[in-house]
Amino acid sequence: MNLSICETAAFLREHDRFLIITHASPDGDTLGSGFGLWYALHALGKQARVVCSDEIPQKFGYLLSGYHEEVFTPETIVAVDLAAEQLFGERLRPYADKVDLCIDHHPSNTRYAKRLLLEPDSAATCEMMLDVVDAMEVALDSNIARCLYTGLSTDTGCFKYANVTPRTHRNAARLMETGIDCATINRLMFDTKTRNRLKLERMVLESIEYYFDGRLALIAVTQEMLRKSGVPENETEGIASLPRQIEGVDVGVMLKEKENGGYKVSLRTSESVNASEVCSTLGGGGHMRAAGCFLPLPLEEAKLRLLEAVSAAYGEKL
Amino acid sequence: MNLSICETAAFLREHDRFLIITHASPDGDTLGSGFGLWYALHALGKQARVVCSDEIPQKFGYLLSGYHEEVFTPETIVAVDLAAEQLFGERLRPYADKVDLCIDHHPSNTRYAKRLLLEPDSAATCEMMLDVVDAMEVALDSNIARCLYTGLSTDTGCFKYANVTPRTHRNAARLMETGIDCATINRLMFDTKTRNRLKLERMVLESIEYYFDGRLALIAVTQEMLRKSGVPENETEGIASLPRQIEGVDVGVMLKEKENGGYKVSLRTSESVNASEVCSTLGGGGHMRAAGCFLPLPLEEAKLRLLEAVSAAYGEKL
Repeated sequence: MNLSICETAAFLREHDRFLIITHASPDGDTLGSGFGLWYALHALGKQARVVCSDEIPQKFGYLLSGYHEEVFTPETIVAVDLAAEQLFGERLRPYADKVDLCIDHHPSNTRYAKRLLLEPDSAATCEMMLDVVDAMEVALDSNIARCLYTGLSTDTGCFKYANVTPRTHRNAARLMETGIDCATINRLMFDTKTRNRLKLERMVLESIEYYFDGRLALIAVTQEMLRKSGVPENETEGIASLPRQIEGVDVGVMLKEKENGGYKVSLRTSESVNASEVCSTLGGGGHMRAAGCFLPLPLEEAKLRLLEAVSAAYGEKL
Repeated sequence: MNLSICETAAFLREHDRFLIITHASPDGDTLGSGFGLWYALHALGKQARVVCSDEIPQKFGYLLSGYHEEVFTPETIVAVDLAAEQLFGERLRPYADKVDLCIDHHPSNTRYAKRLLLEPDSAATCEMMLDVVDAMEVALDSNIARCLYTGLSTDTGCFKYANVTPRTHRNAARLMETGIDCATINRLMFDTKTRNRLKLERMVLESIEYYFDGRLALIAVTQEMLRKSGVPENETEGIASLPRQIEGVDVGVMLKEKENGGYKVSLRTSESVNASEVCSTLGGGGHMRAAGCFLPLPLEEAKLRLLEAVSAAYGEKL
């Protein structure tokens, strides 16, 4: 059942004892909308808990500055920024068919939840959550704003991508007016690299390969590179966007080796190719310009599978 | 003489035959405010020309899509985003003491102009120019908006830095509503790297040195690196911000060798050190968090001079 913003706010006001589920390999938007919702529910005197199948990366610690966990038995399951069952992650997968409400902006959402608030034109789930918070008549405070700004900023590459609308900028202005320190958030999200991360980037850039007359650039992040550089597997975000930044490249691919084998594919595209469509043919999904899938194959086979799928989208032979 | 926004607009409406001077080593803010002003003056039926001591980098070509040059003898000299006499560049230096109006946001402005509109709290000169255009009662069109958005975006690192205010986001929303393609502008400004640029970045990252227990990171861009990578000297922007991105670093330094010898210093700092103050002691200037100067010295001596100046700011011994 599709809900509107107002129906979603009414549902949240009418229920209690929330379990808020964020997606595996958590990013700024799922955590921002999850904890943002927690602060809003808390302001209404409700009980809630935010959970994630994977560990929350340290750099997001500031989102939890006013968060605490209470002991209660969950009654209402809410999933945020969570497009499909497999993104619940191993630990939380059992909840996938018990979700009472899903709030999401991914057009590829598989409609697994009993109630769905879906706005594919929103730059981030956090952008929708700001409307939900307003409709719940919760006053915007700096805890909520810090969370929602984080999702808005991270899902738009700091207001850089095509998903940004005038509304996104006006929302950022409103959130900023609560007095939050956006520059520090952005520095943490975008401009903080460990020395190890610099090492990894150098290795990755040496692995770069070009296909289709330089229109596709592909990088691989192997377990060996992670080991050598000392970068944890869950701290490679941003690397996926490196190949598409090269002049003349309209499809950028990152293949990241998983600990138990196989490669996670991240696809970033320009106008020419629909990333979500390509990844759908490989069992994944996402957005038009940024999507992903998993290929349980050795590196060279995974490359070939991916290149074939892109080739079909280009309408060209490899 | 200090002017207000309204006085500036009145001055522009009352005069004609403008020579609009942008600063040497032109960036998005000086070009954006210069060409933005040209489109506004042109809409009022006035004659104007935009000039720069250095060549305009190719990637800014889209700012000129509606621009053309007419033959006329300039009567009114306007300098935009131009903080000091030496920034006019060699070719335009003779105009430095003939400037009728300067519009600028650099707190270090040396007040060389007869009339000065200075707003150090504006994120970009383009942010002030939007107010000037409004006060001139020129309707915002996509040509003007494309220029002003470019300065707003480039001077804030795409809305990432501490100079962004809610006003900046609301201005971005307004400019966006003219229908300009901000994502393409941002991709050109921030996310387009030639293969040569990638080569240069790898070389530069290998040159990195740490001082003051890892609080200061320093990189050098030598003429040899530029030659080897094939990157033109005027296309190294963005590299200056790499060292400060490393975890634990609060002062990032880039020393760039000039063709005729000597090093241009770019300083990027966090809260601890005032970049503008440090560079002032070395004959330069700029903003609190980003400033520059020129040291006519060989590399090792230039490093030492710079480290001494930062050491004084830290209040610590080398």
